[in-house]
Amino acid sequence: MSYFDILKKDESSSARTGVIHTAHGDIQTPAFLPIGTKGAVKSVTTEELKFWGAEIVLANTYHLWQRPGDLLIYKAGGLHKFMNWKGPIFTDSGGFQVYSLAKTRKVMEVGVLFQFDLDGRQEILSPEKSVQIQANLGSDICLILDDFPGYPFEHKRSKESIELTKRWAERAIREHKRIVVDGDPINPGQKLWGIVQGASFPDLREQSAKDMVELGFEAFAIGGVAVGEPHTEMMKAVEAAIPHLPENSPKHLLGVGTPFDIVQAASRGCDTFDCVIPTREARHGRLYVSANYQEPNSKNQIDSYSTMDIRLEKYKEDFTPVDKTCDCYLCLNHTRGYVRHLFATGEPLAIRLATMHNLRFYLNLMKGIRKAITYDYFDDMVKNYRDVTHDSEALDKSENVV
Amino acid sequence: MSYFDILKKDESSSARTGVIHTAHGDIQTPAFLPIGTKGAVKSVTTEELKFWGAEIVLANTYHLWQRPGDLLIYKAGGLHKFMNWKGPIFTDSGGFQVYSLAKTRKVMEVGVLFQFDLDGRQEILSPEKSVQIQANLGSDICLILDDFPGYPFEHKRSKESIELTKRWAERAIREHKRIVVDGDPINPGQKLWGIVQGASFPDLREQSAKDMVELGFEAFAIGGVAVGEPHTEMMKAVEAAIPHLPENSPKHLLGVGTPFDIVQAASRGCDTFDCVIPTREARHGRLYVSANYQEPNSKNQIDSYSTMDIRLEKYKEDFTPVDKTCDCYLCLNHTRGYVRHLFATGEPLAIRLATMHNLRFYLNLMKGIRKAITYDYFDDMVKNYRDVTHDSEALDKSENVV
Repeated sequence: MSYFDILKKDESSSARTGVIHTAHGDIQTPAFLPIGTKGAVKSVTTEELKFWGAEIVLANTYHLWQRPGDLLIYKAGGLHKFMNWKGPIFTDSGGFQVYSLAKTRKVMEVGVLFQFDLDGRQEILSPEKSVQIQANLGSDICLILDDFPGYPFEHKRSKESIELTKRWAERAIREHKRIVVDGDPINPGQKLWGIVQGASFPDLREQSAKDMVELGFEAFAIGGVAVGEPHTEMMKAVEAAIPHLPENSPKHLLGVGTPFDIVQAASRGCDTFDCVIPTREARHGRLYVSANYQEPNSKNQIDSYSTMDIRLEKYKEDFTPVDKTCDCYLCLNHTRGYVRHLFATGEPLAIRLATMHNLRFYLNLMKGIRKAITYDYFDDMVKNYRDVTHDSEALDKSENVV
Repeated sequence: MSYFDILKKDESSSARTGVIHTAHGDIQTPAFLPIGTKGAVKSVTTEELKFWGAEIVLANTYHLWQRPGDLLIYKAGGLHKFMNWKGPIFTDSGGFQVYSLAKTRKVMEVGVLFQFDLDGRQEILSPEKSVQIQANLGSDICLILDDFPGYPFEHKRSKESIELTKRWAERAIREHKRIVVDGDPINPGQKLWGIVQGASFPDLREQSAKDMVELGFEAFAIGGVAVGEPHTEMMKAVEAAIPHLPENSPKHLLGVGTPFDIVQAASRGCDTFDCVIPTREARHGRLYVSANYQEPNSKNQIDSYSTMDIRLEKYKEDFTPVDKTCDCYLCLNHTRGYVRHLFATGEPLAIRLATMHNLRFYLNLMKGIRKAITYDYFDDMVKNYRDVTHDSEALDKSENVV
């Protein structure tokens, strides 16, 4: 059995459906990974995640290293047992949070010297250390440490970053082989994925992709995106990387994105996605809802989406569902007015219901993408699927006018 | 069909099992009412409440009057629809929160003049107003406004309070008859319960009980307890009131209490209980766990309980269940070490799991009381059931040593 099986290729784009086979079960792609930063998706049980259709979750190496520590999780029997999630787990390298959260940060050949955000403890996150922590966590998919130049993109700095990432990748492979492949680890089925960097520079993305293939990786993440760049830059990065990676390898797009980003990136050949948007936005009362409307002078039914700020006064006496086309617990059982009340009074149930809804929206979106590819209408979806929140004409014509 | 059916009387005490018949279904007693202050039990869905065995919830008139307002809930079709809870709802009069939360408070014959805690708005909560709000909410059990003297108890002030409560009760009955009995209310099956006041003074409790019976109430709450008085004072109040109320009427003990309080009060004839303890303590990481141990020099298995502060360092690497005898989701799926980690890192799932556990503990306790009465071993339960948290010998012998 191969690591990744492509089930159906879309004829109109580079999209495909597939299955990634991990030690803790299969993942149907395109897939979205809910974020369980510290070993828990905010306010959600693992039983619920499974019930809603999540097949894999992402946990953050940086956070778990800091608290409760990877050794404690190792003693607990690995992250699957610690958080009681029996499906696949994806861990990142910790590099992104060292960039975004750490107090100080100095990139050196040996690794990144930094201070933890909570207690100021100094550590070096090296390619070996990152692999060691992820081996202790026992995730199914782990990532190499990559150098992370940030936005705005500069060619010189980006070139250095792909070169350093390549050297670090060699060290990560060696360490992963020592611990996981040749050793007696928590999860002998753990797979190390390479990372393609290179910002939005086609020559660097190409070089980085070739480096990773040459190093022997069978699966890849595209990094250095979702860092504040516009959508077009993000897609440029994807387009520059994908053609230089083997078609039959799974490809993850790190930290992406909005529903629109995901559909667009899937059409360019990305298979898996992770993003804090559905859970973070839920905490601020921003809900994703479908917006189906008739296109002017056309019989086309456009499937789009919008966001609604459920905290607004206008929903106070609105006793209709948040999204009448949604099958989540919130939409089946409660009204906009009630959810607004829960947010207005600071009830913890508010965030729970909102998180539930947004995750279900994202997971249903992935199901919709897989279905569209399978039944040959993904070209329509790519063409029409967009955020109509600020398009009053579209919203007016939508069933789910907000 | 009578309003309340006694199913089994305990031979060793005044305890009994029974069924209260409401417009939204039956309540098996002795029963515990989880608190859904603002129309939601903190972090819990109504589907879960039902699944865990709650048959009735309590909502607070004061809070719902303030936000979102009883008129909004009336427009939503009543509180059952607003919060999507199909079972019975119990509302209090609002008087207790006017005492405990309002900024200023002046008791007058007409009612209580006070300022809301959030926006400082001045209102008068009169016996009529309280009934009007509760009629708009459409609860199944509503309470008369009572005067609330507070602790420490004084005979003179307590005497005045039962007299005022009696006069207010007459007005509440008249208003309830006008709106609910003769009008076209949200919930025509709403029942108005009397309240017995009188602190821990037997003569006043007797007088107040007789007043309420004379006024024609068929169901009663015992108020003015759980206000800081010791357990013995609380039981004195119960003992002074109960004999002067009809045996075949349901009796609610307001705001009580610890598991120990509840068992003791049930043995004195109380049928229903409400308390923030399980939900509030959960938010601070304090979990109720069973403690079964062999009594020294005896074959008796003592069923007791203790509390554990799951946030303590000692649970960090404890990968056993919180309570191995408990059937809640937390205990069946997670470890002490994991829950401690969730509290330590401020994960919202922590409070959710802890609330789930404590509510299940309370609901299982009520089931245990009903079972003990039914199968004639409630006398053993009353004798043995106590909090052994600070009894190291008992804890050492317990299976669930904490």
